[in-house]
Amino acid sequence: MPSQFDPPSGTRDFLAADVEQREHAFTVIRDVFSRYGFEPLQTPAFERLDVLLGKYGDESDKLVFKILRRGEHEATGEADLALRYDMTVPLARVVAAYGSQLPMPYKRYALGPVWRADRPGKDRYREFVQCDLDTLGSTSLLADAETLSAQHDALAELGLPDFTIQLNSRRVLAGMQEAFAIPPDLSAGVLISLDKLDKLPPGAVVAELTDRGLAPDQAAELVAALTAPDAVDRVRVALAKTDEGTAGLDQVDTVLSLLSGQVPAGRIAFTPRMVRGLSYYTGPIWEVVAPGVAGSIGSGGRYDHLLAQLGGPDVPGTGSSIGVERILPLLPGAAADRRGRLDVAVTLMQPDLEVQSFGFAAAARAAGLRASVYLGSSAKLGRQLKWASDAGARWAVIYGEREHEAGVATVRDMRTGQQVAVPTPDLSEFLARAAGEDS
Amino acid sequence: MPSQFDPPSGTRDFLAADVEQREHAFTVIRDVFSRYGFEPLQTPAFERLDVLLGKYGDESDKLVFKILRRGEHEATGEADLALRYDMTVPLARVVAAYGSQLPMPYKRYALGPVWRADRPGKDRYREFVQCDLDTLGSTSLLADAETLSAQHDALAELGLPDFTIQLNSRRVLAGMQEAFAIPPDLSAGVLISLDKLDKLPPGAVVAELTDRGLAPDQAAELVAALTAPDAVDRVRVALAKTDEGTAGLDQVDTVLSLLSGQVPAGRIAFTPRMVRGLSYYTGPIWEVVAPGVAGSIGSGGRYDHLLAQLGGPDVPGTGSSIGVERILPLLPGAAADRRGRLDVAVTLMQPDLEVQSFGFAAAARAAGLRASVYLGSSAKLGRQLKWASDAGARWAVIYGEREHEAGVATVRDMRTGQQVAVPTPDLSEFLARAAGEDS
Repeated sequence: MPSQFDPPSGTRDFLAADVEQREHAFTVIRDVFSRYGFEPLQTPAFERLDVLLGKYGDESDKLVFKILRRGEHEATGEADLALRYDMTVPLARVVAAYGSQLPMPYKRYALGPVWRADRPGKDRYREFVQCDLDTLGSTSLLADAETLSAQHDALAELGLPDFTIQLNSRRVLAGMQEAFAIPPDLSAGVLISLDKLDKLPPGAVVAELTDRGLAPDQAAELVAALTAPDAVDRVRVALAKTDEGTAGLDQVDTVLSLLSGQVPAGRIAFTPRMVRGLSYYTGPIWEVVAPGVAGSIGSGGRYDHLLAQLGGPDVPGTGSSIGVERILPLLPGAAADRRGRLDVAVTLMQPDLEVQSFGFAAAARAAGLRASVYLGSSAKLGRQLKWASDAGARWAVIYGEREHEAGVATVRDMRTGQQVAVPTPDLSEFLARAAGEDS
Repeated sequence: MPSQFDPPSGTRDFLAADVEQREHAFTVIRDVFSRYGFEPLQTPAFERLDVLLGKYGDESDKLVFKILRRGEHEATGEADLALRYDMTVPLARVVAAYGSQLPMPYKRYALGPVWRADRPGKDRYREFVQCDLDTLGSTSLLADAETLSAQHDALAELGLPDFTIQLNSRRVLAGMQEAFAIPPDLSAGVLISLDKLDKLPPGAVVAELTDRGLAPDQAAELVAALTAPDAVDRVRVALAKTDEGTAGLDQVDTVLSLLSGQVPAGRIAFTPRMVRGLSYYTGPIWEVVAPGVAGSIGSGGRYDHLLAQLGGPDVPGTGSSIGVERILPLLPGAAADRRGRLDVAVTLMQPDLEVQSFGFAAAARAAGLRASVYLGSSAKLGRQLKWASDAGARWAVIYGEREHEAGVATVRDMRTGQQVAVPTPDLSEFLARAAGEDS
């Protein structure tokens, strides 16, 4: 039941365990991208409204969060800024702004929140993290293979148990239209229908193609070729008969051959019926799928004129995107592995010993451990040990009148309950050694 | 000169070197806070408008970026959401929402952007990172000392060359008002004027106090006591005569004594004329100052009823805040230390050798190095070595017809220009060893 204290609709608060799981995953991804020589780029949360609007069409414009003008202009009810909708429009602006200061090719990654005023739902948020890597300024298929390889490595190092990459090319799709004699005016619609072959039964797609104006036998032949057990071979034969199809096959085979040493066999496959809905792709395209997950968990492709469409310079580009919000729930045992908040919990038995107890926590930190003194108001040892246990502490340091007189601190192993008296000057070293034996 | 491609006024794009410097600093800060047992909290970029407005007064409300309602409601020109202005209002909401799920005391840090529609200027941004750590649910001065100690350690570990902490208490200020017989109705104004003693000459502050209605000799006596070489001793004597002053001195001395083992001598001092402008503080208060920097680079204090004022439950709290945007420019040699984008740059001399070159980059990455193959269009070695040099590569791997026939790759040390032929199966191991010798 939503309350007045919930975060706004479609957004989330991340408490400690969630932040830690997410940041761990982001660090893995950043490390992989950096190993490939991609560099980070961070742009503001908002852009000027004219930079954002009109880039992906009216439906997308409706999803933009607009920011009201300020001061005396607020009363106009007009907006002049808007929260970024994706990472690509800001990239186009940055390339236009910093052109010659950027290395060329410019290999950058962007990992951060974007905002869309979508209807919130399961796994659909209004604030979510997007994770893009792109290479601008290279027409080489090596660049496509490189972003795809980096995307693969990131997913593998995250520990995603099972995923496959479907590879295709826009030129393959163009070649298929030629090979199967699809009228040019129907081709866009035909692609949209073929894209549904992984969701709908073949007969339903044939019916949709027929509705779009394709001859019934042509529709049936096309769907049969794409869904047959030997679909890939049949499509290869058909494609080889046209120039565009041959060029598309060349692209696919070059990328497959570049990745043959990097991506395990069976994890990537030429998938001629994979279309990618977006019209701006110009070369290789790919989608990453995982069993039990509807839709894709990653995607990418070459888009040689997109940047110009988005208001940037006309530089060729290719890029991969990881659906981090969809992947995070799939990752193994992240929450279970979570350490406690503390390694060492220091009790505070008497107010006149607080300087010593405070200092013991500092001694534990000097040993590289996470430590805090008890901040509550109970003087009871049982309550304080409960606090230590709740914080996941591995050791408790107990220091009362008796310890004070003997010049020791009692270190309690919170797993076994065993206690040992440690001379206070040796406490830091003792804890460091105990932690070393533990790990 | 601003161009259409600049980021919005008051915001910044961070290219690779900036991102790396900032993220490095953030990691240092997070590590210190975590070592003290503070846990991370992340809340959405925006909150419902009613959660944000009216919390800090009209002037602050004017600085809030408001988000226009969406869909059919957009035409009303009304806002329903707003970008967060600070990290404390979201904290109050989270404590109200998750109460019993949170550990108590709740020790959390928040590090992320906030947005204020301030007039942009030097070191004043509309999007900037705020860094807060707070302990809620403890009235113990140990909690104040702990957040102060964590703040100190973070600044020290960042490598900030020189800073000092001015410590005071709201109860000291109340005691001074009593000791110097300042009429209660003048006390708020008197504090505001005293707060200027580090910026204005004593005479100007005396004049301001007189304008506020203080008797001239009383104003002169007060300023003299606070600016004399033995100001601290004089104030201590005066404070000891009142109950409130004695209580305030006790707070200051307890915190100083707790920190005596952790904070180097001379880095923290009781500073009775330090006021902190904000009215919500109730106990110890502190500011961190650095030579040559106007204003403070960090601050904090106890605020036992602020959360209730902000719409949360009435739990006591204390916290520290680090002015990260002011500190980042002060940090030593961060930019100079920056590594290149790549460790290993692999040339591509002939199209028919691209699979091998692509594989060599993968072999270098398998050795833990950052590596990429050349993605440009030139077949000239000189151009490709220039690219390797621009990317800061430590080694270039050259692989042409001659190497291919000999089954080797030429590894060029980009510092010395020396080249060595390495059998291709040994390349990964060779680079790993070279990197090991390098570090």
